[in-house]
Amino acid sequence: MLKKIKDKKIVVGIIGMGYVGLPLGLAFASKKIKVIGFDLDQEKISVLNKGKGYLKHIPAKKISSAVKSGYLSATSNFSRLKEVDAIIICVPTPLTEHREPDMSYVKNTAKVIAEYLKRGQLVVLESTTYPGTTEELILPLLENAKNSDNGNFVVGKDFYLAFSPEREDPNNPDYSTASIPKVIGGVTQQCLDVAKALYDQVIIKTVPVSSPRAAEATKLLENIFRSVNIALVNELKMVFDKMDIDVWEVIEAASTKPFGFTAFYPGPGLGGHCIPIDPFYLTWKAREFELNTKFIELAGEINTYQPHYVVEKSMEVLNKFKKALNGAKILILGAAYKKDIDDMRESPSLKLIEILREKGAEVEYHDPLVASLPRMRNYNYDMESVDLSKKKVADYDLVILSTDHSSFDYKLIAENAKIIVDTRNSFESRSINSDNIFKA
Amino acid sequence: MLKKIKDKKIVVGIIGMGYVGLPLGLAFASKKIKVIGFDLDQEKISVLNKGKGYLKHIPAKKISSAVKSGYLSATSNFSRLKEVDAIIICVPTPLTEHREPDMSYVKNTAKVIAEYLKRGQLVVLESTTYPGTTEELILPLLENAKNSDNGNFVVGKDFYLAFSPEREDPNNPDYSTASIPKVIGGVTQQCLDVAKALYDQVIIKTVPVSSPRAAEATKLLENIFRSVNIALVNELKMVFDKMDIDVWEVIEAASTKPFGFTAFYPGPGLGGHCIPIDPFYLTWKAREFELNTKFIELAGEINTYQPHYVVEKSMEVLNKFKKALNGAKILILGAAYKKDIDDMRESPSLKLIEILREKGAEVEYHDPLVASLPRMRNYNYDMESVDLSKKKVADYDLVILSTDHSSFDYKLIAENAKIIVDTRNSFESRSINSDNIFKA
Repeated sequence: MLKKIKDKKIVVGIIGMGYVGLPLGLAFASKKIKVIGFDLDQEKISVLNKGKGYLKHIPAKKISSAVKSGYLSATSNFSRLKEVDAIIICVPTPLTEHREPDMSYVKNTAKVIAEYLKRGQLVVLESTTYPGTTEELILPLLENAKNSDNGNFVVGKDFYLAFSPEREDPNNPDYSTASIPKVIGGVTQQCLDVAKALYDQVIIKTVPVSSPRAAEATKLLENIFRSVNIALVNELKMVFDKMDIDVWEVIEAASTKPFGFTAFYPGPGLGGHCIPIDPFYLTWKAREFELNTKFIELAGEINTYQPHYVVEKSMEVLNKFKKALNGAKILILGAAYKKDIDDMRESPSLKLIEILREKGAEVEYHDPLVASLPRMRNYNYDMESVDLSKKKVADYDLVILSTDHSSFDYKLIAENAKIIVDTRNSFESRSINSDNIFKA
Repeated sequence: MLKKIKDKKIVVGIIGMGYVGLPLGLAFASKKIKVIGFDLDQEKISVLNKGKGYLKHIPAKKISSAVKSGYLSATSNFSRLKEVDAIIICVPTPLTEHREPDMSYVKNTAKVIAEYLKRGQLVVLESTTYPGTTEELILPLLENAKNSDNGNFVVGKDFYLAFSPEREDPNNPDYSTASIPKVIGGVTQQCLDVAKALYDQVIIKTVPVSSPRAAEATKLLENIFRSVNIALVNELKMVFDKMDIDVWEVIEAASTKPFGFTAFYPGPGLGGHCIPIDPFYLTWKAREFELNTKFIELAGEINTYQPHYVVEKSMEVLNKFKKALNGAKILILGAAYKKDIDDMRESPSLKLIEILREKGAEVEYHDPLVASLPRMRNYNYDMESVDLSKKKVADYDLVILSTDHSSFDYKLIAENAKIIVDTRNSFESRSINSDNIFKA
């Protein structure tokens, strides 16, 4: 297997062709390693096989050249797992409504793999998950795979199993899949060796750790660190605001310390499918050991509160002008969860719309990257992005800046809006100051 | 005043010649600006005037050359404040027993300054403190200075007042007073201009902010950030330990992420006179606004618990060997609060000694930089550092590594100790692995 990998005579199967699986597949294909992408979504498969794209931040050209060269193809026929040497699992790990891990995608995928697993195959899980998933959930399923002669598959000998967390950061201008070091933990030393050899073909640097659970914990630490630090500045934002101190100015000043400080910024709430979700995988697992993860809980509490804080602040601002929130016409600027992307997963803008509507406001939104709000797991809005003109902007009682897209005409907005609530310091950072702009 | 500063024709008075005031005074003196150091401690004054030092990390040679050249002298006669153009306050801001700000040093210093303040003088506070100190506590005292004709001193005109937080990091090999950018907030624009001109003479870069309270908040943010992140890894250490995951390995692996992650390390508790103390200045002030600072409280709770955790872990380890803590002979390695310094302020080693003794252990310590434990505010031990030999090390039931001084003979200790509890990952990081070493 090691030789086969080094000679690039392997075929890699990737399950889940989304934000993680697609760029990974392209990375392998660009190194002339054959990739079969597996996905349940027929639509995705057909688009992919036409050499087209469906994620804004991944250039369609990359996909078309990978498909044309024959190194990338896609299928929804999972029996073709028999054709591959390595299987990489890149499926979602969301939370249930009660903030518990929803392991259904991982579990179902592992079951499908167990249907087809053959001797010598490598299986790697990349989905962010609680420590223990690979060894406790996946390993038993594969040991008892259909071809195992009644549970006689021995890991590290008959098949290889490892965990290697994805570290995708869509739209990061400096780093992409191949240039981000990759942590790997194998169930056995053989598992680690094979998985490392595979990733060494495409990733700039692999980082072996002692076990899959160490690798699982690594990814969680990275995201817990972000969640906690964002919550910390969100809390300080609220405290400093009462003291008539601008948290943005304070963060900028602290950033001049050349050691021991890293800047994080407040905002209207967490978004995306990692930071708001992943930390609770550890919380859930910790309960098994009769432990609480207090920082994660507190960070969750404060970050979840942020959209509510923005609405309260908006209500206060309107109140200064003797206007009630109930009945006010409000424009939300930005629907995506971070700037210059079209991804709305867990976007705080969606939560803002919900809370504002509950309180009786008439809400519209504008986002050049999100033409309309589709039905989502938690929301079902029938809304389309409105066009912006001077006249239109002036028409709203309040404009809330939720996502700081670069393409907004901040000057036009500041000059024409009646009142602005800015959750990203977007105006002042562009030297646009005005009495009608309030931070939240 | 601005011209006088630029021509270096000023005299700078520094009140408090400790960890902050002494290096600052040396920085001015090295630029041929005359400095008078004020301190209540006669002993310090007399040592300084002899051109000698009293802080291990500040070379005595620097002091002797500053004193010989005539640019640095020291006095405990505060009436000589009349001789200076600028007064910089570098006095301690500790906590009371009830974890509230002890502002007595700052307040008494401001009162003394008010006795002598004359027209045209600049006063700068550098002590870490709650937002509002400069404007609410010091300003009124100076406006009503003795020479003010019944409260007629106008700030920004008759005298200047600013806050500029110290950012000292003793023993940092890369940065010292002059090379660390300095944040400054003035009560008025004139105050800022004058204070900035002064520091621009010696500091590589000055960072003006809009107000003293923004500058006060900046320093607190820097230290709150550290306190919270250290507490976070301390919590994760305890959680991961139960999951049989080594937090040190996880932190090292996470550090390979080239963006969005900064490593902090767990330990036996916080030490020094900044991180364990400063955050609570904000907590105290926030209460005035009916707000809680939840992250600071949680960080305090978890960090304060760490020495207790180390003792619990030690008890568990001894228990494995059927040995009780009560009656056990224990050696603490390291008394200083961080490696390679001789500073014991708030050192967790002192707390460890206390808890271990309470539980009946016989405790000794070894620290090449701390020959004996003097009487301190919270502790009064009559202990001297013991010498270490093979035989001596083997004599203890348990050795607890508390401070990871570089000079320890880790190999000798590992080979001869019966059992080791390592709170700093000091052995494994030196590739010393053994069954008798346990992490805590």
